[in-house]
Parts: sequence; structure tokens; C-alpha cells
Amino acid sequence: MENLQYTRNWKQKDIVVAIGDTRVGRGDFLLAAGPCSVENSRQMAGISDILSGTPVKLLRGGAFKPRTSPYSFQGLGEEGLKLLRQTADALRIPLVTEVTDLKYLELVSRYADVLQIGSRNMAAYELLKEAGRQPKPVLLKRGMAATVKEFLYAAEYVAAGGNEQLILCERGIRSFDPEFRNVLDLNAVTLLKRITPFPVIVDPSHGSGRADAVLALSLAAAAAGADGVMIEVHPSPGTALSDGDQSLDPDRFRVWAKQLSALARFLGKRI
Amino acid sequence: MENLQYTRNWKQKDIVVAIGDTRVGRGDFLLAAGPCSVENSRQMAGISDILSGTPVKLLRGGAFKPRTSPYSFQGLGEEGLKLLRQTADALRIPLVTEVTDLKYLELVSRYADVLQIGSRNMAAYELLKEAGRQPKPVLLKRGMAATVKEFLYAAEYVAAGGNEQLILCERGIRSFDPEFRNVLDLNAVTLLKRITPFPVIVDPSHGSGRADAVLALSLAAAAAGADGVMIEVHPSPGTALSDGDQSLDPDRFRVWAKQLSALARFLGKRI
Amino acid sequence: MENLQYTRNWKQKDIVVAIGDTRVGRGDFLLAAGPCSVENSRQMAGISDILSGTPVKLLRGGAFKPRTSPYSFQGLGEEGLKLLRQTADALRIPLVTEVTDLKYLELVSRYADVLQIGSRNMAAYELLKEAGRQPKPVLLKRGMAATVKEFLYAAEYVAAGGNEQLILCERGIRSFDPEFRNVLDLNAVTLLKRITPFPVIVDPSHGSGRADAVLALSLAAAAAGADGVMIEVHPSPGTALSDGDQSLDPDRFRVWAKQLSALARFLGKRI
Amino acid sequence: MENLQYTRNWKQKDIVVAIGDTRVGRGDFLLAAGPCSVENSRQMAGISDILSGTPVKLLRGGAFKPRTSPYSFQGLGEEGLKLLRQTADALRIPLVTEVTDLKYLELVSRYADVLQIGSRNMAAYELLKEAGRQPKPVLLKRGMAATVKEFLYAAEYVAAGGNEQLILCERGIRSFDPEFRNVLDLNAVTLLKRITPFPVIVDPSHGSGRADAVLALSLAAAAAGADGVMIEVHPSPGTALSDGDQSLDPDRFRVWAKQLSALARFLGKRI
Repeated sequence: MENLQYTRNWKQKDIVVAIGDTRVGRGDFLLAAGPCSVENSRQMAGISDILSGTPVKLLRGGAFKPRTSPYSFQGLGEEGLKLLRQTADALRIPLVTEVTDLKYLELVSRYADVLQIGSRNMAAYELLKEAGRQPKPVLLKRGMAATVKEFLYAAEYVAAGGNEQLILCERGIRSFDPEFRNVLDLNAVTLLKRITPFPVIVDPSHGSGRADAVLALSLAAAAAGADGVMIEVHPSPGTALSDGDQSLDPDRFRVWAKQLSALARFLGKRI
Repeated sequence: MENLQYTRNWKQKDIVVAIGDTRVGRGDFLLAAGPCSVENSRQMAGISDILSGTPVKLLRGGAFKPRTSPYSFQGLGEEGLKLLRQTADALRIPLVTEVTDLKYLELVSRYADVLQIGSRNMAAYELLKEAGRQPKPVLLKRGMAATVKEFLYAAEYVAAGGNEQLILCERGIRSFDPEFRNVLDLNAVTLLKRITPFPVIVDPSHGSGRADAVLALSLAAAAAGADGVMIEVHPSPGTALSDGDQSLDPDRFRVWAKQLSALARFLGKRI
Repeated sequence: MENLQYTRNWKQKDIVVAIGDTRVGRGDFLLAAGPCSVENSRQMAGISDILSGTPVKLLRGGAFKPRTSPYSFQGLGEEGLKLLRQTADALRIPLVTEVTDLKYLELVSRYADVLQIGSRNMAAYELLKEAGRQPKPVLLKRGMAATVKEFLYAAEYVAAGGNEQLILCERGIRSFDPEFRNVLDLNAVTLLKRITPFPVIVDPSHGSGRADAVLALSLAAAAAGADGVMIEVHPSPGTALSDGDQSLDPDRFRVWAKQLSALARFLGKRI
Repeated sequence: MENLQYTRNWKQKDIVVAIGDTRVGRGDFLLAAGPCSVENSRQMAGISDILSGTPVKLLRGGAFKPRTSPYSFQGLGEEGLKLLRQTADALRIPLVTEVTDLKYLELVSRYADVLQIGSRNMAAYELLKEAGRQPKPVLLKRGMAATVKEFLYAAEYVAAGGNEQLILCERGIRSFDPEFRNVLDLNAVTLLKRITPFPVIVDPSHGSGRADAVLALSLAAAAAGADGVMIEVHPSPGTALSDGDQSLDPDRFRVWAKQLSALARFLGKRI
């Protein structure tokens, strides 16, 4: 991989990303969870109940939702950011949420602790460059058909701007089997862990599109060497306005948090 | 394809896109050509010589280049837009060039006759929505791993804003064979032609990544029912700053223009 | 492509495949058609009516059907071969049919003029080697996820046995869009035509899985440089025991034969 | 998945495959290892040294090698089967080796304890049907572009013949990133474990093509719920006649056996 500045040839030591008291990488394993999109305060109260007292150390959730159809629910906007912030504060954990366009960067920065750049925007280079100038950690998701090399170049766009507080997230690639929305690519995780200093986490919710696969794939991600797992959870997935099929319900979430924590500890990680 | 407003169920008649005197769709076949990126005035003079007196009715070329690596040539910016405008004016044909981010929309609009939204931005919904409010035609390229349905939804983002002067462009999808940069998907063209009223053109330069495949694939695109073909050409592909492998040299270009025009006329199209 | 004996570096001249009076390659363009599978004598009489007096010069049809499910119709076996032979004789054109396993090679050889090796068997090397020792032309279909290089190596398995009467057939590759069963890969056709001496034909029926795409893709294949097109046709596609969705009905077939012949002639081919 | 007889709707209980004293499934976790192809007695003595005293309970190795190129090493044939048998006997573990064609079935059966059907032959239905009549367990590998549904139908071809002693093996699917030979599809493993009663093992050697990814992917497979892992090992990978890049050397093998056993035990499996 020629011309990549942030590879093991150049930077020998793993970068630890610090978000308040939450740490990711170099032995610190991250559990991140939350709804696909913020819907209303009642839903977020339910999320708060679910996450309270668990090892989840980062709240995820979308206020601006990039949706395939212009006629689908597009998110609550700033109202959603406020609900996310309140929930994170009540849980005393930091918040990651997506910046869907450069024009929302300032607004989202006022509420979020970590700026997420989504799969559709992995190659939105102006956004990447500006994210590289922010004083906040960035969570960069791999494009749905991006090679590992293209993913690393996207990371360089951020890091070259001076922001090395960067978390990479594998979230599934497009493939031919209609049984799954995407195929989780743990091959990529093994390669990323060897050649980049940035922490690498995995999103098995998008990586499969099926709630019944999330636990097994979360455990697999941890075993493959990932530095964390980020999933979608919902008090009542059947009524979710987006991504209900891949969201864990409260019962499944409890099993997930327990088993994933236990495995991570067995693997020598700190939770 | 539920919820799509711009399908044959709703709009029965093909939309013709008019760009000055150039027309695309409903029997008018478009030849578009130009360099991948503008490099300097000497190169553009060469382009002018190549295109002069040919049936090419739209100049293409990039001033802002979205490049995989932050360390690759990124385009000349506004200086490039000026050179493109001068070349188009000298040739008396309109100009299409890419808007890589919403923040460049106003600047690019001052120079371009058609606003191109590239593959990497097919799902940049804020950009699509704003393009839908512009008084200029839009050329929307399919994402490299977008389904036809997702492509049509992206088109809806533009059209829903009121701008029905929209050209769709198939430019190859990602696949497994390293012989080609992408695989040109003419299946998609046949489907698009049946269910959308927008003109559909094909870019076999990106659709193959190989200059030696461009002529044959251009002819194939015309035969498959496309409303036009857009290619990359360069006075000296071996020295091009980007995409040299897929750019036609002047000799290949002449054969291409002649054979493609002849085939399009045989198929009953106006050139 | 190292180690390939049958590339343009070694054999400069196109190989013409001769099947009785039918010729394929070096300017002779082949139209091949027939049902997916032989069902009964009434269906075959219908096929005979459809093909009679048309430029179709090769009858295709399956007697041994490799089906994904063991519970689907598996073909009529030798009874089917007899019906195919009778139909071909009545039409005075040669017959191609598939050898699904080495153990059927002798039986199929008694009836067929051309031995087809299907996509699922492109890497059935024992079958390929034995086909290379037969005194009959072989039609080798590309595997559904085979690279061009793997396809050419499979061709070498046949040719290395001494049988250079070999036709290659592109029939679509697996991809991510559920709209189509496969994506027809005309990029591969352009590459094959430049580097292999064997005639290359295209199967747009399997290459799309949709009857409404077959005509446009057939024209595209001819324009891309293919030496022929092979399609599925059925007197009554709605009642077909296999592949009804991709089979042309008699009306569509007539338009197909007429338009494809006209285009091939325009391109300078003999029909 | 309509018409599948061997799904959880029909057969509620996991099938255990018994190979001598080795058991796979329902809590018994299998470690299988051996060379890609048998080369000579010195190599096999090296293999014996490596595997001796480890938890590996099944020897793998190829005597008939299906190779992409007819000019590559094709395996030692019966001589290779003899060497494999001797090695397995010396190690007192059973042997799995591939039947590449129906015509070798009887010969291979004389030496092997488990009959492997390789990826290229997943849809070789005559071979599958005959394997269904054998008195020996069958190890069926997923085709490189087969959907889970197609894989299950292939399993039905075997089981419908009466042989329910069947192990399914995920070994990677074809994708777009040239960094890896294949992408290991653990999504498929999670789905197979829920809907089929057959044990499911994983081959991360072919699933990545890289020795440096095998350990991490083996652990991931176990964590995802697989019933075993099968890998390639070689006394001196740099000199291997096939698949050297993906074969573990003795040092890597020791770490692999130790860490995988420990993880499987942590997950509650018997080794």
C-alpha cells in the first residue's frame, strides 16, 4: 500500500482514542449501542433504561438520516440531537452521531462527542478533510464496496488534516446473497489490525441486517481482533421507523452485553 | 419499485434534456467527450483540436477531482473551470463538469452548463436535493455498487426538487475480476430505459478502465438502447495526470466517433 | 496471462468452428436458439414451428438439467435427446446440448453435434480433459463467478487435449442487484476477442434472467464483437418447466431474429 | 427456504457426524489440518511431526488437485492417497480427501474416511447424488459464489440419497478486494447454524488466502458458532507446490492449535 502515511511502517504504536473517560484501542474494548434513528423522547427513555448499568460506553443514534428513498423518514434533525445529548448525559457516556453533510458539521459538533462519517460518505473528501481539522474524535465507516486500500486512503484524508483521533468501522460489504443486507468482512478487520494504528470496530447490525445474527457476529468480531462492537438496539424493534429488522430488543441486548463482555475479557481486553 | 414517482406508471413520456442546442433522449443520441481532468491550457488546446468538427455535442472534464488518495493530483479548481469554459466556447458546445461538494455548487454553476454528480456522491442526498433546485440540467452517475432501485431513488431526490432535466449515467459496477476496473452493466441500461423517463447514457471509460475496450463497449451501449455515450480522451494518454489507461488517444477517438455515429444512425437515432 | 498456450501471442489467426454447414467465427455470426429443457413432443413441435425459416443455425435444448434443487424437474434424459435430435433433423440444423457429467458423455455424443459444458461445470476438469479428446466441437460456458483468466485456463484444458473446435460462451456473472439473475459481462467479451483465437458467443437469456432484456442485450453483444448469440425460446413461456421468465415467446423471437440479423449484417458479419 | 427437507422445521435435532472416534457437531468441536496437496513422503513426515500430540482430530490433504491451470501441479493421485493413509494411521486420526470426479469415487473411498466434495463441485449433482449413497461421511464445501440457499440444496442432493452424515464447510466467497483470495462469510455460518441440522465447519485458509489471517479468522469462526475449523499447514510453506501463501508453518500452527482450543473450551465446546 504505497503512499499511505499511517501504516505500521511509519507509526509503530497503536493509537488510543479517548472520548471523555471512554478509551478505544490498545487493549480497551468498546461496546457502543443505541437506536438507528432517534424517534421521540419516549423511545429514548426506553433506550436509557436498556443501556443503564451495562458495559456500553458510547451511545450511538442518528438525527440526520441518509435514506435511500426521499420519501422515507429522514430523522428529527436538531431536535434529535438534543434528545441524544440528554440521553448520553443521563447515562454519563459520550455520544457518537453522524454528520451527513459538511453543512451540518458545526451543528452536529455542538452536540456530539464523536463525529461519525457514514458509509455513503466514506469518499466525501471535503467532509473528510474538514473532519481532519476538528478537535473531536472521528468514527469513519467503510464504504459498502470500498477496498481496504480505499478505506485507508479515506482515513488518510482525515489524519492528514491533523486529527489522529480516528476510529475505523467495518460494517459489511455488498455481495450476492439476498439472505443478508451485507456480508460482514472480518478478513478486512484482520488486515486493518496489522497495518493501521487506528482502532478498528465492527458494526454487525449493518453487517448482516438481521437481529438474529448480531450476537454471533459480535463475538466473531471480538475474536478476530476488533477493538469494539457497535450495534443497534430499540425498545420495540417491530415499531422502529428505520432498521427494525437489525435492531436488538431488550432481551437480546442483555444477552449480547453479557456474552460479549465475557468473551472480550477472556481475550484479555479491558471493558 | 414502490414509491417511485418518476417511473412509467406515472410519467408516460420520455423526458428530453435540452442543453443549449444539444438534445438528449427521445431519439437524440449524445456523444460526450473530454479529458478526465483539466491539466493546463496546452492540453485543452489539444482537446479542442481533437473534438473540433466531430459529432461530439458535450464537453466533459474535471476541475475538482475526487481522488482515492489525498496525495494524488486533486484538480486545478477554478482555474480548471475557466479552461473548460474557454474550450467549450471555442468548440461552441456545452460543458458538463462535476460538483464534488455542496460548497462548490455555486462556483461550478457559474461555468458549467450541466452539473455532474459523480459516482461517489450518488447518495450525497443534500447535494442531490440542492441540485434539484438548480435551473440547470443534472447528469447523475450511478454509484459503483448501487442497485438500479437505489439509483432511481437518487434520481427522485433531484427530480422531487423540481428539476426534471436529469440525465442518468451507467458507469460500471464493482466486481471480482481484476482485469477490469469495473464491469459495465448494460442490464441496468435495459431496465432503466423501460421504467424511467429520463435519458440514460453510458460511460465505458470508467465502465472498463481500459482504452482498448471503449469502442466496443460504446457500440454495445448504443445497441442496448442508451441515449448517449460519454468517454475520456486525451492528446497524450501516456502523460495524463489521471485515468490515462482508459483515455482514448486522437487516433482511437476518430475511429470511435465515426463508428459510433454510424451505428447510432443505423439504429434510427439523430446525432 | 502467463502460461496460456491459446492466446494471440501464440496463435495469431482466429479459429473457425465448423458444425456441418454452420460456421462460427472469423466473420460468421451464429444465431442459436431453443428451449431451456425439452418437455415433450408437442413443445418441440412448437419450437420447430418457431425456428423454421429463420436464420437460427444451431438448436439448443437440455435433456439432462442441472437444477439447484433436487426436487425440481431434472430433464427427460435420453428421451429428451431423441426429441432434440428429431427436431434438429427436421430443421436441418445442428444440435448443441449439455453434458452434465462425464458418465453421460458417450450417450450425449450419440445425439449431439456440439457438446455443451455448462457454467456449473466450467471447472470440472476431468470432463474438460475428456471433451478435449472428442471428435466434436465443444461449447464451453463461463462459470458464474469465473474470471476471464480462469475461463481461458478452462479452455486450455479442452484444447490441450487436441480439440481446438471450441466455442466460448459468456453467460452473465453473479452480482449484487436482485433485479437480474446475472449481469451480462460484455467487458469480458471485448477482452476474449482480443486475446483468444476461439469464437466467443453470448447467452443473454441467462445473462439477465429476463425475457424483456434479451433483445437489447443480444444487439449489445453483437455490437461488442461477439461471434454469435444463443437464447432460450418457448412456445408458451408461462407454462415452461424451467426458465420461463427468460424465454422469448414466438412474437418476441421473430423481432429478435429480424433485428439481430439486420444489426449483424450492418456490422459486416455473415448470417 | 421452500422445499428444503433438512431444515429446522423438519429435523429439530442437530446431527452428529461420527468418524471413528472423532465427533463433529452438538458440542464437539473439530480441528482439522493438513497440507493443501501431498507432495512426497518427506513432506508428510513433516506433517506428522507437526500434528502429533495436538488436538487435531482429522487429517486433510489432496491427492487429486483441481487446479485452475492445466499446466500446474495436479497432485500425486493414488500414490498421494497412500501417503495420506499412512500418515493418518500413524497419527491415529481419520482422513478427509477430495473426490474431484465421480470416476475417482471408488478409488478415493478405499483410502478416505471422509469424502470431500470441493467448492468447484458443489453443483456437480451426479457426484452429490452418488455421495448420498456412500457409507461414509461427506464434507461438502460451499461454492465460491453460491448462496446459502444453493448450498443447502446441494446438501439435500447428498442427504436425499440417504447419507445424513454430512458436514458443511464455509470457505469464503468471491468479492471485489484484491487483498484477499476470498472473503470468509461468517454471516452464512450464523444462518446455517440456525436452519440446518448438519455440523458447519469453516476453512479460513481458502477463506482468506493469507497465512497471516488464519488464526484470527479461526477464532472468529469458533465465536460465530462453527462446529470446527479446517486449515492448511506445511513444514515449509515457502516451498509448497500449491497454496503456500495460505499454509501455516509449524510455529504458527502451534499458536493456532493452542489458542483455538482454548477459545473453543471457553465457549463450552469439547475438543
